[in-house]
Amino acid sequence: MTRPYSDRVSFDFLKGHGTENDFVVVPDPDGELLGALDPALVAAVCDRRAGVGGDGLIRVVRCSAADDPVARAAAAEGVEWFMDHRNRDGSAAEMCGNGARVFARYLDEAGLVDSSAALLIGTRAGIKQVTYETDGTITVDMGTPDFRGDVKVTVGQRTWVATHVDMGNPHAVVAVGDLSEAGPLLESPGYDETDYPQGVNVEFVARIAPRRVAISVFERGSGETRSCGTGACAAVVATAATSLASHQLAPEAPTTYQVDVVGGELAVTWRPDGHVDLTGLAEIVAVGTWLG
Amino acid sequence: MTRPYSDRVSFDFLKGHGTENDFVVVPDPDGELLGALDPALVAAVCDRRAGVGGDGLIRVVRCSAADDPVARAAAAEGVEWFMDHRNRDGSAAEMCGNGARVFARYLDEAGLVDSSAALLIGTRAGIKQVTYETDGTITVDMGTPDFRGDVKVTVGQRTWVATHVDMGNPHAVVAVGDLSEAGPLLESPGYDETDYPQGVNVEFVARIAPRRVAISVFERGSGETRSCGTGACAAVVATAATSLASHQLAPEAPTTYQVDVVGGELAVTWRPDGHVDLTGLAEIVAVGTWLG
Repeated sequence: MTRPYSDRVSFDFLKGHGTENDFVVVPDPDGELLGALDPALVAAVCDRRAGVGGDGLIRVVRCSAADDPVARAAAAEGVEWFMDHRNRDGSAAEMCGNGARVFARYLDEAGLVDSSAALLIGTRAGIKQVTYETDGTITVDMGTPDFRGDVKVTVGQRTWVATHVDMGNPHAVVAVGDLSEAGPLLESPGYDETDYPQGVNVEFVARIAPRRVAISVFERGSGETRSCGTGACAAVVATAATSLASHQLAPEAPTTYQVDVVGGELAVTWRPDGHVDLTGLAEIVAVGTWLG
Repeated sequence: MTRPYSDRVSFDFLKGHGTENDFVVVPDPDGELLGALDPALVAAVCDRRAGVGGDGLIRVVRCSAADDPVARAAAAEGVEWFMDHRNRDGSAAEMCGNGARVFARYLDEAGLVDSSAALLIGTRAGIKQVTYETDGTITVDMGTPDFRGDVKVTVGQRTWVATHVDMGNPHAVVAVGDLSEAGPLLESPGYDETDYPQGVNVEFVARIAPRRVAISVFERGSGETRSCGTGACAAVVATAATSLASHQLAPEAPTTYQVDVVGGELAVTWRPDGHVDLTGLAEIVAVGTWLG
């Protein structure tokens, strides 16, 4: 019995992760797979049991060949590579710090970029700068946080005051003495929908040393996750902001925190220009071909 | 930055599933990977986020090249291929009906067997017969059930009488009117350890038509799963046995039930000679190379 391959789409992929946030990376330099990689196929590929499995899929396409206005704008600025990031349900995804490192790791290992210099990449959240560090980690400039005041977050019978930080996507950061205070996050934390009409990502943050925090993350639509890049950035700036003078919007000197997540360790640096750098490992663990 | 590949093990694999019970299949005809595929590497490969991901790993090795007394015995009987099945934690696994179909699917697609005839394969549970059906499904002879009387199973506040069926591994089969009766199986069902000193797999079975059942499965060590081949067999024989005369150990004519599991559909046939055939689809969805 042979299988009917004729109506199927076959393509090469890589599997990689950053702090156990994992992605199927699909090289498509000339944009030939855009039509084939529809939401149903992306969801089938990302299915952890019936497919390859991943938190999302990243198509690697030249900005000039990506059918996307943001990519065309990046191409006009001389940026070569576009990160076409999809959620595991096939929908278009926003910027993802862990995914950007995996994307950058692939570009380097495939010999498509000069990793001795800073690299600009196109994403749906605009052009982002990536730096290959000498220790093997990769840093992504995640932009500037937008502080939007205090909000309330509820889990079970307990309510906390949280800091509303927007990192391109919305976060509510709750300072706790110990991560166990929030309990098992089996259900989505409660919040005021007027604060977050599009839903919110919630980070519980415990300081475990002067410049080190541990966080647990509840991502909207996904539940508790092993790591969240923008969540780590939001957690650090909300924590560091408590020691800023009232009119400051950033620290006077670069301030780096280690962030312990379930899936590993990240470093977040808040710079005097307000930008937040996210640093961590990213690894490609397998290459393959999807058979449909 | 290039990664230190020198201390890593690279090998080719395939990813496949039967009713969403998924496996990393590693072709190793001449047994060269046995030493390298230690429990730590198997666990790393099966890790769903930091690795490829799978419910287990199946090394495909010639019986004559497998370092295993059961495989040597199969080789002496003229059986060519051995299914070296590992659990996701790297430990040696017992027979798995869904895994055996994926193993057989690989052997056929790789052109290693003649799929027009019945095939004998070596497994840790002995030699098993596999048949490639004309409709694309694959049948595995799962052997004969051993009925060991009634036991009790408890979930939350509720206790049921269950049938103890051994299919090479232990099962407790609970007949319910509707699968929702058992509720969400977040915790391991309770049982008497004198009945099951090695733990037990629990199946809740609801009849939904004269020869059709739906089951939910709680596998020891894994929790609720999307499919369990031996569990489907145990569920069907326990259900069908209720209509046998008291001294019969099998039906007078082959009796086939459709079994609906979360991950799809299986067929289980109880034959007059007492053997139980498990039939279902199996699919290879990707081929790849592990980079370590």
